[in-house]
Amino acid sequence: MTRFFVSPEQMQSQFLVLNGENAAHAKVLRLKAGEQVLVCDGAGNECECTISDVSPNQISLVVNSRRESSSEAMVKASVYMAFSKGDKLEHVIQKATELGAYEIVAFPSKRCVSRPDDKSLAKKLERWQKIAASAAEQSGRGRIPQVVVVSSYKDALVRASNADKAILFYENEQATTLKMALSDSRYSSISLLTGPEGGLEPEEVEQAKSYGLSVCTLGKRILRCETAPLCALSAVMYDSGEF
Amino acid sequence: MTRFFVSPEQMQSQFLVLNGENAAHAKVLRLKAGEQVLVCDGAGNECECTISDVSPNQISLVVNSRRESSSEAMVKASVYMAFSKGDKLEHVIQKATELGAYEIVAFPSKRCVSRPDDKSLAKKLERWQKIAASAAEQSGRGRIPQVVVVSSYKDALVRASNADKAILFYENEQATTLKMALSDSRYSSISLLTGPEGGLEPEEVEQAKSYGLSVCTLGKRILRCETAPLCALSAVMYDSGEF
Repeated sequence: MTRFFVSPEQMQSQFLVLNGENAAHAKVLRLKAGEQVLVCDGAGNECECTISDVSPNQISLVVNSRRESSSEAMVKASVYMAFSKGDKLEHVIQKATELGAYEIVAFPSKRCVSRPDDKSLAKKLERWQKIAASAAEQSGRGRIPQVVVVSSYKDALVRASNADKAILFYENEQATTLKMALSDSRYSSISLLTGPEGGLEPEEVEQAKSYGLSVCTLGKRILRCETAPLCALSAVMYDSGEF
Repeated sequence: MTRFFVSPEQMQSQFLVLNGENAAHAKVLRLKAGEQVLVCDGAGNECECTISDVSPNQISLVVNSRRESSSEAMVKASVYMAFSKGDKLEHVIQKATELGAYEIVAFPSKRCVSRPDDKSLAKKLERWQKIAASAAEQSGRGRIPQVVVVSSYKDALVRASNADKAILFYENEQATTLKMALSDSRYSSISLLTGPEGGLEPEEVEQAKSYGLSVCTLGKRILRCETAPLCALSAVMYDSGEF
């Protein structure tokens, strides 16, 4: 069923009107009166609607039933990724959204080559949030993951450590596997941190430990900075029973 | 340590010579006499060498020790991906190599929009194999996964079913998880099949079952055709104890 995102306020009413991009999208799909669509508030609630009327720039809907979205992951997984070059962060935002991430947090670290200034950051954040919204729509999610930027590595650690489990992946770690870190206790939220192209500095890894993060390996092969977070997220989704 | 791939024949000698692309790469890295490098035959064997001499177009090496590569995955995971549009197959070849895939097999299926003809296929296969070699080098693998093309969906099923486990992922499957399919017995080889952009036809799914493949879900969200194989491969690497 086609899925549209509207604001939580719009979702309150018994009769909904889709306009702007949503109406344009409906036009492309040639939706007609009588067809069923799904409307989501992007925060985990959705309603099944019947199209009552189609006009050039808006679509009117009648709400049939409301429910909590059934396509959200059971575990809230936050993907913390260091700023990286090119469109790698965009790639990870799109894929992590598909894979069910709760949020994506970008942070600076010592070896980050690319670090956007405040001015370009506002623009980028808007673009990143749109990528997340579009991937959420395409993958059938009921929630749009928020893309968050924190201003320091320390802030990332403090924020990450609030989850039930907080894991930092480091290519020089060999002994502790993700499986060990996950198997010692249940978790309903998890933070997954990965470094930039050049990796994290050993001091940064020590600092993460001091904030309570577990340092784990992702295996014997060196993963690119855009592969590591998605590999870790896939494993967590598998571990927590999603598939 | 910098890693070079040579042919298995070249690896036999006690004194190795790197030339061509390898020598050019060594030049870029400004390697000098006395430095240590790793030379791999791309088939799982490697030797640690000391550079004895550097000339403009070749590098001479003395072999110090030989060993089996320690960075190969314990399970042989074959990634079977339907032909897809654009550079998605290239993306999957690169990432699956990093993640430790044993081989990548491309196959046609009913809803494949893109299906290269024999002439362009030979060229593409050469390009795909280069992508695998380069990703193997960068991720520190001792083996270059082979990229294979099979000419029919049936051939893919027959080939895939030779592994200890053969799994087909289907978006309309809800009951059987990958975890269920993996937990009933041990495995040292596994085939992971995923469909093209438009998904597999229900008859194709039934056909896969008749060849002994298990049909599994990858969770409640619809994954893009380039995300699904990497998600499945990451989960298998996690499940089999790689990280």
